[in-house]
Amino acid sequence: MEPAAKIENILVLIEPAGDYQEELQRRFPESQLLFSSPGRVTEEEIEKADVILGNPPAGLLKGAERLSFLQLQSAGADAYTPKGILPEKTLLACASGAYGPAVSEHMMASLLSVYKNLPLYRDNQAARLWKCEGAVRSLRGEQVLVLGLGDIGKEFARLAVAFGASVFGVKRNLSEKPDFVQEVYSMEMLPEILPRFDVVACALPSSPETSRLFDRNMLRRMKPGSVLINAGRGSLIDTQALMEALQQGPLMAACLDVTDPEPLPAEHPLWTCRNLLITPHTAGGFLMEETFHRVWKIVLENLSLYAQGKEIRNRIFHG
Amino acid sequence: MEPAAKIENILVLIEPAGDYQEELQRRFPESQLLFSSPGRVTEEEIEKADVILGNPPAGLLKGAERLSFLQLQSAGADAYTPKGILPEKTLLACASGAYGPAVSEHMMASLLSVYKNLPLYRDNQAARLWKCEGAVRSLRGEQVLVLGLGDIGKEFARLAVAFGASVFGVKRNLSEKPDFVQEVYSMEMLPEILPRFDVVACALPSSPETSRLFDRNMLRRMKPGSVLINAGRGSLIDTQALMEALQQGPLMAACLDVTDPEPLPAEHPLWTCRNLLITPHTAGGFLMEETFHRVWKIVLENLSLYAQGKEIRNRIFHG
Repeated sequence: MEPAAKIENILVLIEPAGDYQEELQRRFPESQLLFSSPGRVTEEEIEKADVILGNPPAGLLKGAERLSFLQLQSAGADAYTPKGILPEKTLLACASGAYGPAVSEHMMASLLSVYKNLPLYRDNQAARLWKCEGAVRSLRGEQVLVLGLGDIGKEFARLAVAFGASVFGVKRNLSEKPDFVQEVYSMEMLPEILPRFDVVACALPSSPETSRLFDRNMLRRMKPGSVLINAGRGSLIDTQALMEALQQGPLMAACLDVTDPEPLPAEHPLWTCRNLLITPHTAGGFLMEETFHRVWKIVLENLSLYAQGKEIRNRIFHG
Repeated sequence: MEPAAKIENILVLIEPAGDYQEELQRRFPESQLLFSSPGRVTEEEIEKADVILGNPPAGLLKGAERLSFLQLQSAGADAYTPKGILPEKTLLACASGAYGPAVSEHMMASLLSVYKNLPLYRDNQAARLWKCEGAVRSLRGEQVLVLGLGDIGKEFARLAVAFGASVFGVKRNLSEKPDFVQEVYSMEMLPEILPRFDVVACALPSSPETSRLFDRNMLRRMKPGSVLINAGRGSLIDTQALMEALQQGPLMAACLDVTDPEPLPAEHPLWTCRNLLITPHTAGGFLMEETFHRVWKIVLENLSLYAQGKEIRNRIFHG
């Protein structure tokens, strides 16, 4: 099949490119490839690009008149969706599907860690203290709610089922239900169903309707002794209300890979909640080798679809 | 079916008995039940017992002339197997099968925690430090070796498969292979196969042939960057050699729920290994509610089998 259009300039901001640098050159021999990074890239380089692979700083996109396709390396695209960031004609796609294994495993590791009191044992280890920290929890027979059933949420749900939990989902758009999920609810149902769940795991992208979704009222609806996990966006949870829910109930614990504010300043009181596990937005990224290969696989496939004039995957509408 | 023999005195050392106290009385209305604990029980109480449920101090068993059945609440029975501890005629049974969920989940929680750098992030949390600790690991595509394929090892193997690992086993007695285990090796094969594995998870009971199985030579055979988990008995691993393997390689990390010596004294240098996660023998016990019910289920079933003159389960030979 003939390419729909020759792509003149491809700007690659995904680092590292590794062996995929040669692979790109092999697949698109007639294109000019420029390899840079989000930190080093200039406005001039962006102005020349017909296609960008990776996440350019949104503030540098003003002069991107030639840009016809922006393929992000991230699962989220919210920095690029507001009107005026991208030219109207620019196709936008994210790398949803690449982060499922890494983020879901991180969420499960954090949850199990808290269930088995491992953060407390780590504190005791630093104090050279051999001391039992009491009862532990198990997912067996528990009710788990997953907010967001994209690749991250679905994979977390599958793992929770392997540990013996009954898993339910909440989706913004009701669609097909994976076999291992008992039932899928709409976002409007959340306040009503929330009190049933032992674990609430959030893997939602940032959006206006989910900002501060977990405010004081919502957190108070959670089941006494339940655990809240957030690996989506920090803005989902009201930090002050979370601290109260951790200190006075109903939460037993929380696991946050994202915070608000982020990064969390050293003087912030959230650091001192003992029943909270904080990781510094490290669930995703390229910290797990498989994610890197998954991102490149999605990027190369989508670029081929685009070059052939076919419908791209993971398309995000903007403006 | 008629009981083979009326049991006169049943001494119950399992704490708490909870609702099972009434259940026992209901099932054995003609027996005298005495509820005590391993800490409070006296030699006189043991002398009168025909059956003991739970783990009496081995040193108090000298006068246990009437004792015909000792049903332990533990998975291990090594305190009761040496010659001279129990009368020859006494039937001995352990509670193998009760601890699979609790210990396997603890092992998986510890492994994932180390894979995702959570102990380091907990250290950073105490220092109010928002700092990436670099690459994380995943079980996807990794090779896992499970030593001991009892209920704990089998359940850990099943979980590791759910996380995408290929799992192999080592058993003292070769027997049937669970579907989800690729291959089962004999203990003699261990030195030869050891260098292949990314994770070595030990759930072996204590026995003379496994004491210091992981000595300096064996630890040196492990794959560079591999992780060793021990939730069986501390005597399995030479502690000094383990510290060297953690500091100089080949180990990336270790997770110990059991240590040698145990409890680990405050001045012991093992506490200070940063790439080691220590929990104070808390994987088992009654810390997980389900374990408590599983132990009582096994105990009640075995006591019924015994009372009916049938073959008991989990029989251990002693003397």
